[in-house]
This record gives sequence, structure tokens and C-alpha cells, in this order.
Amino acid sequence: MAEKLKIISLGGLNEIGKNLTVYEYGGDIIVVDCGMGFPDDDMYGIDVVIPDVSYLIKNQSKIRGIFITHGHEDHIGALPYVLRSINAPIYATRMSMGLIRLKLEEHRLLSKTKLITCEAGDVVKAGKFSVEFIHVNHSIADAVAFAIKCPVGTCVHTGDFKIDSTPIQGGMMDLARLGELGKEGVLALLADSTNVERSGFTRSERSVGASFDALFRGCQERIIVTTFASNVDRIQQIIDVAARYGRKVAVTGRSMENIMKVSTELGYMNVPDGVLMDLNHIKSLPKHKVCIITTGSQGETMSALTRMAFNTHRQVDLMPGDRVIISASAIPGNENAIGNVVNELYRKGAEVMNERELALHVSGHACQEELKIVHALVKPKFFIPVHGEQRMLQIHARLAQGMGMDPNHVLVSDIGRVMELTPNSARLAGTVTAGQVFVDGYGVGDVGSVVLRDRRHLAQDGMIVVVLSMSGEDGALVSGPDIITRGFVYVKESEGLMEELRQVAMEAIQSVDTRYATDWSAIKSTIKGDLSNYLYKKTKRSPMILPVIMEV
Amino acid sequence: MAEKLKIISLGGLNEIGKNLTVYEYGGDIIVVDCGMGFPDDDMYGIDVVIPDVSYLIKNQSKIRGIFITHGHEDHIGALPYVLRSINAPIYATRMSMGLIRLKLEEHRLLSKTKLITCEAGDVVKAGKFSVEFIHVNHSIADAVAFAIKCPVGTCVHTGDFKIDSTPIQGGMMDLARLGELGKEGVLALLADSTNVERSGFTRSERSVGASFDALFRGCQERIIVTTFASNVDRIQQIIDVAARYGRKVAVTGRSMENIMKVSTELGYMNVPDGVLMDLNHIKSLPKHKVCIITTGSQGETMSALTRMAFNTHRQVDLMPGDRVIISASAIPGNENAIGNVVNELYRKGAEVMNERELALHVSGHACQEELKIVHALVKPKFFIPVHGEQRMLQIHARLAQGMGMDPNHVLVSDIGRVMELTPNSARLAGTVTAGQVFVDGYGVGDVGSVVLRDRRHLAQDGMIVVVLSMSGEDGALVSGPDIITRGFVYVKESEGLMEELRQVAMEAIQSVDTRYATDWSAIKSTIKGDLSNYLYKKTKRSPMILPVIMEV
Repeated sequence: MAEKLKIISLGGLNEIGKNLTVYEYGGDIIVVDCGMGFPDDDMYGIDVVIPDVSYLIKNQSKIRGIFITHGHEDHIGALPYVLRSINAPIYATRMSMGLIRLKLEEHRLLSKTKLITCEAGDVVKAGKFSVEFIHVNHSIADAVAFAIKCPVGTCVHTGDFKIDSTPIQGGMMDLARLGELGKEGVLALLADSTNVERSGFTRSERSVGASFDALFRGCQERIIVTTFASNVDRIQQIIDVAARYGRKVAVTGRSMENIMKVSTELGYMNVPDGVLMDLNHIKSLPKHKVCIITTGSQGETMSALTRMAFNTHRQVDLMPGDRVIISASAIPGNENAIGNVVNELYRKGAEVMNERELALHVSGHACQEELKIVHALVKPKFFIPVHGEQRMLQIHARLAQGMGMDPNHVLVSDIGRVMELTPNSARLAGTVTAGQVFVDGYGVGDVGSVVLRDRRHLAQDGMIVVVLSMSGEDGALVSGPDIITRGFVYVKESEGLMEELRQVAMEAIQSVDTRYATDWSAIKSTIKGDLSNYLYKKTKRSPMILPVIMEV
Repeated sequence: MAEKLKIISLGGLNEIGKNLTVYEYGGDIIVVDCGMGFPDDDMYGIDVVIPDVSYLIKNQSKIRGIFITHGHEDHIGALPYVLRSINAPIYATRMSMGLIRLKLEEHRLLSKTKLITCEAGDVVKAGKFSVEFIHVNHSIADAVAFAIKCPVGTCVHTGDFKIDSTPIQGGMMDLARLGELGKEGVLALLADSTNVERSGFTRSERSVGASFDALFRGCQERIIVTTFASNVDRIQQIIDVAARYGRKVAVTGRSMENIMKVSTELGYMNVPDGVLMDLNHIKSLPKHKVCIITTGSQGETMSALTRMAFNTHRQVDLMPGDRVIISASAIPGNENAIGNVVNELYRKGAEVMNERELALHVSGHACQEELKIVHALVKPKFFIPVHGEQRMLQIHARLAQGMGMDPNHVLVSDIGRVMELTPNSARLAGTVTAGQVFVDGYGVGDVGSVVLRDRRHLAQDGMIVVVLSMSGEDGALVSGPDIITRGFVYVKESEGLMEELRQVAMEAIQSVDTRYATDWSAIKSTIKGDLSNYLYKKTKRSPMILPVIMEV
């Protein structure tokens, strides 16, 4: 029996973020992307979510390489964590590699890891796989799709993409190559579903330049622009328009400074001589000579723009009249954070220009008409929608069916599901371990669902610690019960309630016969139950109750 | 010196929600609206936010009445809490009063409170004030604006409104009356700023009916529609289209059932005979005869639609093919919750129709062109933008200025700021107590910023309790230290760390000379400091550390 090709997503299906796809054939595995995700609102204290890569750890010896489509965090962000347990060479384009290098340096993993820089057109052999890099357009420079070949057939893995016929650099996505592959015959297409709910075409990155021009032309005030740090082409356009109108440009925010450094070093940004200026020096220029590019387009608490708005930026004070341009759209969930910053900007007398009214941002993902072009060019036998939540995957599936694809040839999968392909079939076959691993501070995976449940409980109603000491000899109460609360009520204004709780605890203690107790579990559970009932009746709250007994 | 008119907002400025405006002249106060707000994401455990009404409590004897513009929660929701400390008659239209009655009944305040039902056109005397009820359009029936007269002049207080020339009931907002008032002379206009960022006109409620018709016509599957429970006209349109296509209608969700009851009893809804059916019975009908109206348009966890999506609704199981119509837009901050429900609906095979693509919802608030019409009719001497965040208030101020109003005649105020008006002047003059009061379970105001800070701290990194007992005689350690954690790390997998913490605590204890201690504060703060430093270095986390010492 011939070997089958297995495709397993460990992230990126039924979620936006932590993209990681495994291609396995015989004794060889290649991994496409290794991204992180952001925690949901109720994952208190979690900094970053990464994919569970148990399957890769178990199959460590088979891994021939990690192939990166582009340098966004949801495609490279888990590398520093995953590389602690897996050693594999990383293949990426120059810009992506620049960002990966920065990341690995920070985590002191750079010396241990083999990095191979590729460019569009390259074909890399990796075990029985060959991986071809194909140029695509996206909101970060140097993004690629992959044509992944093995004896079962060719898979086209788009990565994140849009079709931009007038991009700032790099030319239009290589539709010609996709067309050639389509003619040769493609077994499966795995394509980006982020924008599949939107009809039409995503506008060209270049269209934003015209909006910038209109806002810079004739403006006599300082101009402050925020955008996604990784959007090098956007930043290039801001620099170009600033230079055109005689403004100097200063940059603030760590991620923005990092990207500027990497992209200018690698030649992805072209800054005219004398335009860039230190933030400390630009302040002395007249207002109409000043342009500041800053992080904070999502209203992030610690970002430079937020700090300017709330007067806590060390170098820039917002001034009435400042023109603040928000060249970004809100990532779902960030609307209120952004709204708060914008309110504060208004309060300071700034003039805020945002995406809603003006054409100040374009997406990096393909809308329906672009997706259809790719489907029509690639003409895959099987289709696997990826990079999206359930509704996007299903809408993408319907789009494919609308173009004539047999519904049985579309696989809407989930993380951990094994998709098994032969030259003539594709089916879901079994599962492997997959899920979320939480990063909290230095800890990777030491916070799990029980800890998070406790955090949610503590957040909701706070906690009550009941301490007492009992004699180890005769089980008599030696001292206490003392009641300590945090996050429950103002203690000073609730002294009556505290006294009642002490009374309830005391009665609970007295109701248990502890003379022959071998442990204190009975008394603990009685205290907990009685206090909990009492509190819910009295206050309709359920704080965490923690009875602590010291044996003396 | 002549008396001045004071206008003080205790809620609704620089926020969306908890609207409450005080009008004070001489010895008389009237209150317009008494709304609640929803807690921000970081107000853990808080159910409802209400305005701080200390100022009203202090001036209790002056209050002549509470006048309600309409029955939405952000205009009536604080009544049951405020009425605990303030006794004043409530004036409202019939529909609003029906909802208020329901609310006061639930809180057992109905018998104590004087309720006076009014209708558009009525003029109520309240001390030296007279208050005229003026019909407006909004997303709930029977909404009014007020013309508030006192010897200083006339104030027009719009409440929430839109101009709908083809509403489902009640006719177009009474622009003619606003025009008359404008001709007589209006001192100040206080107008709704919710939609001031949107250009053009808000579409008529009636336009949604056509969209419903298109989705019901020819549909052979069950139809499930969710919308805001309070939008009686929307529900009426759903019932009408269901009846038109021979479907029976069942209703699910507590707030939806309440509204149906109130609005049919009061004659605001007109249900053709035999159309309404119990949820338990509708299940036996063929699919094309079924329409279910449900709560859950905002993805609320406990709502009927969410329970259907996640298979926890007692009476309705979602079936593949069900057509689910979401006739609502997302309130900012709810995007992800709604997205999760929609994903689940897709997963169950439902067909989801939402507002984004189809015209399934219209706003209840005026856009720029409607606002301009009201400004032009009322021709106020002074303008006070209300009901909005800072940016909306400012954009509304600019809109007024764009219509020729003197910038010095526009007051962008804040809650607690006193606006002082004479026939020829308006200025900000001093402040009164104002702010947020948190409702948590049965507690009103017993959770404040310190408690919330503790909850945020607990949520972020959990807590560590260090318990020990010390001898009251010689200050010697009797037992412990024991380490108990919740919400910090998996204890079982972190036994090494727990042992280290015990060690650090022990060293901290030994480093303090407790022989002559009069209290245990030194030892407590040493334990706290040492553990905190150790943990941050080791884990980059800062759990709450709670040293507990029992004296034995």
C-alpha cells in the first residue's frame, strides 16, 4: 500500500492565531509556520497562547524543517517556545528571517538554531518533500505561499495573502506560478479564510498613500501617525509623504523601532537621507516640520500613543491641534481600548483622523473575489479552508462549492484532526494531541484550566481566608477563627458582616466532632459549605473560601 | 440677583450609559432619567454600575420628580437602587411606565413609589419647573423629549432619538413642536450624541421589514430571529412577516417574554389571533410553520440563543438548516461573544443571516443630518452635547459650530460639573460629587476601587497564603510556614517551587527579631517582600501574597 500524505493543523483552525500546520509523509515531517495567539478576555494573566506541539515532540526525529510564510506574530511567535523542545532548521525569506533572528536573540536561542534564508522561486528539499517559495502580497513584506510536493501530489499552502496589483514593493503576487501549478495538477489547496466574509476585492496598499497625501498637504500642525509596526510598506508611505511635505520623521515604540531597524538594514525600507530624526531632537522643530510614527494602533495600554494620550510618554506631550492619524482597523475585541485612547486624544484637543471615515487602512487578506481567482488558477482536487474561525471556514467551503467543487472534496477540519490524502481521496482520519499552551511570565504550560478557573473565581468575587489553629493532641480549637478577605467587600464598612462570618465559622467548627479526627478535611468542608451558603443568601456572591487550619 | 438655572449630569457624559441629569432652579430640582451602565471589562464581578447620587440625597427635599424619556436600561435601570435612598414621584409615558413597574415590582418598591403616567403633549408642573412631553422616534416605543421651562428659559432635552418618517407606530417625531419652541426661543439644547460620528440619516425602522420579508419568503426551514428585547416595533415586524407566511411564533428568553407581556397588555403590540404559540408546542409543527423569537443578540452567555447554539436550551435544539436571523448590531465590546455564538451556529449547520451583509438592523439614534435638523429647528442660544463619550461630545460640538453656533455657547461638560445658566450666559461653575457606584449581587456600593484592584491583582497572577503560628509569649515560631496557593500554578507540578517558597518564607521569619514584637507587622512585611522578589525573579509573576500569623 502506498504511503499517504497526512496534513495536521496544530493551530489556526477555528481560531485566528497560532498557525501551525504539519505535513507528514512516510518518515518525514515538515512544519509550516509556528505562530502564537492572544489570550481570550477570560484567560486572566496569560500573556501568550501557543499551540500544543506534543505531536511534534513525539515525532522529533522526523522533522526536516520549519517553513515560515511571513513574519507576523501569529506565524512566527511560538518559535522561541517550540524551539526549546524541538530542534529543526528554519526556512524563511529575508524579511521574515530578520524578525525571527530578533526574536531568537531575545530568547537566547539564536546560536542553537539553523536558519536558512530563501527567496521566492527557491525550491527546498526536505526529506521526501520539496517546498517551493511563491511570492504573495500581504501586510508585511516578503510574504510567501508554498507549493509542497511529495509523491502523493502537490499542495498549495497560501499563507496569508491578498492580490495587490500595485503594491509598494515586490510586485504582484505570483499568480502566474499558481496558474502553472494548477495546470500541472494540484492535489490540495489550503487557503487563507480571514476575509472570506467580505465581498469584492481588498484595496491596494498604495491607495492609502493618497489618503495620507491629502492629510499632510497644507497641514500646519504636528502629525502623529500610528499603524501596525510590521507593515513596512505603510511606514514607507508615511515616510515618503512626510519627506514630500518637508517633514522630519521620528519613531517611537519598541516594536516600531525594531521593525525600522530590521527593514532598513535588509533594504525593505528606503529612507531618504536626513528625514529620520531622533525623537528628542524633533521637538525643537516647528510644528509643520514634525511627523511622529508611533505604536498603539490597537489602544494597547503600554504603547507610545496611549502614553502620549494620557501624558505619560517621556518624550512627547500631546498638544492641542496635533493631527493624529490612525492608520489601522480595530482587531475584534480592541474596540473599547482604542475608543478610550481616541477619547483622550480629543480631550487633549488633538484632531483625530481614523479609518472609519477616511481610507486610512487596507486589509492584508484576500476578499471573496481574490479568493475565487486563486481557486480558479490552482484548480485543486481537494480544498481545505484554513486560517479562520468556524464560520469563515464554512463560508470559504461554500465559496469553493459555488465555483463547482464537489462538497465531498472540501474538508472543514479542526486542530488535531488528521487529514489523510492519497492521489484520489482526502478524509479525516483520527486525531493527535492539540490545544492551547499558556505562557504566563516565564512559565510555559504551568498555568492550565484549573488555575485559570481559580483566577476567574477570584476575579469574580474575591476570597475569604478562614484561619484557625487546632490542637494536634485533642482536636480542640486553640485560636481563631480569623477572617481575612481580599477583593470581596470593603472590610471597614462591613465589620458587621465580618463578625457574622466569624460566628458562622465558629458554629461550623463546633458542629464537627474533631476529637478523633485524623485530618481536618471534615471541619474544612463544613466551614466552607456553611460560609458559602450564608454568604450567597446574604450577598448573592460566591467568593472563594479557603479554610486554613494550623495544627499546634 | 436673579436665580440661575443649574444643569448637572450625574451620568451620561463621557460615557455611554447611566444617564441622569439634574435641573435645579431655586429650591426645586427635577431629574431626567435614572439609568444604569454596564461594567467595563476590568470591573471584575460587578453586575451593574449606577450613578453616584450623593448630590440628590443631600438635596432630597428639593426633588419634585423624576422624568423618564424612555424605557431602556440606560435610562431607567438605576431606579430600583436610587429609590432606596430617594423618594420622588416618577413621570413617564405608558410604555416606559410599564417597564418601570415591572422593575419596581421585582425589587419590591412598587407600593412605595408614586407613578404618574403621561403622554406626549402633556405638561407637568414640578415646583417652578414645567415639563412638556414631546414625541420622538427611537428603538423603543413611546420615547419622548422634554421641553423644560423655568423662569430662566426653556431647555430642550432630546433624550435618545432619531427622525423616522415611516415608523411602525406613533408617527414621526414631533418636529413641528420643536419648531414652535425654537420660534418662541430656546435657552439650551441638550441632545443625543450617540451617532454623531455617522454621516447622513439613520434608516427607518420600517426598512428592516423588507429584509425580513425576503428572508421569510419561500423559506422551508425553521426561522429563529434574535433582536433587542426592548425593540417592540422590530418584534411586531417579525410577528407580521411570520403571520404573512403562515408561521406560528414562539418566544424565548426572560426579557423577551417580559416585553411581550407588557407591550401587548398596553396595546403597543398587535398580535393576530392564533399566531403566538407556546415553545413546547411549536416544536411539533412542520419546519416551515415555525418562527422563534429569542434573546441573545449580543452573545450573552445565559441567553436563549447562546443556549440553543451550545445545546443547553431546555426546549429548543438547533437543527441543521435552521435559518438564524440576527437583527441587531454588536454593541462595542460584544463582537467576540457574538462571534463565538455565530461560529457555534455554523458548526451546528444553521444558516446565519446577520446585519453585516443584509439590512437586518437600524440604529435608534440620529446621525448627523438628523441632528442638524433638530439644531436648526430648536435654534438654541446654548448647546450642551450629551449622551456620548468625549469624542462624540466634541464632534457634536463641532457640528453645532458648523451650523453657525458661537463656540463659546457650547458647553462640553463632564459628570458632576455644574452648568450655570442665566438668560444670557452659560458657564461651568464648580462641581458636585459624581461617579460610579458598583452593584455586585445584593451589594450596592460595598465594592469600590480597592476591592476591584484586589480582584484585578488576584485575576492576574492568583495568590499565595503563607500561614504560620507564633507564640504570643516569646515570639517563637510554633508551626508553619505553610504555603497555600490558588490561581498561581499547578501545585502538583510545581512542588519544587512550593518547597523553595517555604524556604524563603522560613528565612524571612528567621531574619526578623520577634522576641519583643508588639504586633506581627514586621514579620509580615518581610515575608511579603522576600517572597515577592523571589517570585518575580524566578517566574516574572506577582501573585498577591497574604501572610497570616496565628498567635497561640
